[in-house]
Amino acid sequence: MTDPAQFVDEAVARLRAAIPGRAIIAASGGIDSTAAAILAQRAVGDRARAIFVDNGLLRDGEVARVRAFFDASGLHYEVRDAADRFFEALDGIVDPEEKRRRIGMTFIRLFETEADRFGTDRLIQGTIAPDWIESGGSLRDTIKTHHNVGGIPLDSRLTLVEPLRDLYKDEVRAVARALGIPEPERQPFPGPGLAVRVNGLVTPERVRRARVANRVVEEEVERAFRTGAMPRPWQYFAVLLPTRSVGVLGDNRVHGEAVSVRIVESSDAMTATAAAPPPAVLKTIAERITRELSGEVVRVLYDITDKPPATIEWE
Amino acid sequence: MTDPAQFVDEAVARLRAAIPGRAIIAASGGIDSTAAAILAQRAVGDRARAIFVDNGLLRDGEVARVRAFFDASGLHYEVRDAADRFFEALDGIVDPEEKRRRIGMTFIRLFETEADRFGTDRLIQGTIAPDWIESGGSLRDTIKTHHNVGGIPLDSRLTLVEPLRDLYKDEVRAVARALGIPEPERQPFPGPGLAVRVNGLVTPERVRRARVANRVVEEEVERAFRTGAMPRPWQYFAVLLPTRSVGVLGDNRVHGEAVSVRIVESSDAMTATAAAPPPAVLKTIAERITRELSGEVVRVLYDITDKPPATIEWE
Repeated sequence: MTDPAQFVDEAVARLRAAIPGRAIIAASGGIDSTAAAILAQRAVGDRARAIFVDNGLLRDGEVARVRAFFDASGLHYEVRDAADRFFEALDGIVDPEEKRRRIGMTFIRLFETEADRFGTDRLIQGTIAPDWIESGGSLRDTIKTHHNVGGIPLDSRLTLVEPLRDLYKDEVRAVARALGIPEPERQPFPGPGLAVRVNGLVTPERVRRARVANRVVEEEVERAFRTGAMPRPWQYFAVLLPTRSVGVLGDNRVHGEAVSVRIVESSDAMTATAAAPPPAVLKTIAERITRELSGEVVRVLYDITDKPPATIEWE
Repeated sequence: MTDPAQFVDEAVARLRAAIPGRAIIAASGGIDSTAAAILAQRAVGDRARAIFVDNGLLRDGEVARVRAFFDASGLHYEVRDAADRFFEALDGIVDPEEKRRRIGMTFIRLFETEADRFGTDRLIQGTIAPDWIESGGSLRDTIKTHHNVGGIPLDSRLTLVEPLRDLYKDEVRAVARALGIPEPERQPFPGPGLAVRVNGLVTPERVRRARVANRVVEEEVERAFRTGAMPRPWQYFAVLLPTRSVGVLGDNRVHGEAVSVRIVESSDAMTATAAAPPPAVLKTIAERITRELSGEVVRVLYDITDKPPATIEWE
């Protein structure tokens, strides 16, 4: 891509050709799918309906934040509450690949229903180049695990439209600026939501714990870089682990779960370094998590592994 | 206890009275049971037989280190290899209390057999005051979990003899010095061995991983405090976690387990603070563990929780 304005013109023209009738847009709240959605609505107006799914796996206050972001971007959208369907699909599943597959399938079945209602077979997604490159290079000939790519099962009636398919992240940011989309105030959040930050079984109870832990990590890391105590990291989050260990609550022994805190520096997400935040920041994070989840989480761990050999997210 | 030399004289006299015939000594290699063993052999000589059990759950090089420590302390002892019996007892067990119970039971059944062979019903243990205080205050009326206390089942034929029962740790150290026992070169190691550092299933394979990780943590922390990079901590070790997360090995994705590293400052083990080692020390630990257990462990976490709300060990 050489010029963002030129890319926008060409993408809008291509989208007009690709959408003779109507289309549904999978709007995740991230920069990629928001840019794809704005491009589609520029091309065909309200014949492209953007849908944001509340899958019950979102961060604290996420729906309100996404609404504000869409409003500021000028996107027309609808929100669907589908938490029950996702928890049902995830019942009893611990394998990370199987979790992603079921989340992807549930999204697709929801969008198929939405497409039927709206009278279309086109689904617009914000897939970008690293999504399909990291997933194996081709859409249908490997086992897909990346959320944007893995969703469409072979038997789906939907046809994917991916206007940002050849762009890299910095190019998408340039396109977003050209479209008048404001810089999102929060860091990117993976499609499967907190499910990938709940190692082991995904239940409403465990998602709630992961939600509290992630809120604490975000608040404390953001406070630390706002006050200059550390540089702004690439990504920062918490993962709930299905381990049991002993803790002390008053005069009693309790068994609780553990939370792993991940804060990484990176320039492109292909490699990453575990950040070394000030000990006081980690201490506050550990104290708040074990207090706000008293008796449920007794241990907080800081992930000191680079990528490679680890990845940034756990699942 | 006012004077160590006086305590030794009185303890030897009490042990002579308590052991009219023969006795078996449960010698763990720690300072407590070694002091109890030396007192018993001063009292009745080789009518007290010290037995060290290799339960397959020991650290790297532990048997050789314990032998050297016993030799330097002037203890007469025998070593029994019982790894198979312990792994059989732990097969399929993940609950920490149940692990400890089964390890304790296996120890006791072994010592019953040894006692039968040696012709006695007396078992000498190195129990000290914090062992039974932390376990509930009385030997038989609560569910016991501390190794030294929990071992004896109600149906055992053995009678416990505990010469250090009323002493605290610093008093035991004074008694050990009075007995000519050298300062042990390694930090104290819990009775159930690496089993409490293998969260989840205890298999020979997983114990091997925990053994490698613990060796790395010990070597790097000891190097760091020898070179003045950090003060000598109270305790430092690694715990293998039964979590699966994604890693990168060459061009492939792998799923591996995680290791949690614990380094704490404390003066009495009743409370403890997570140490803040130099980032370079943690980085080296993470690199070595993921390299020496390549493809098996993809993630290393540093435990940042104080006691309370966590405990020092996980189980």
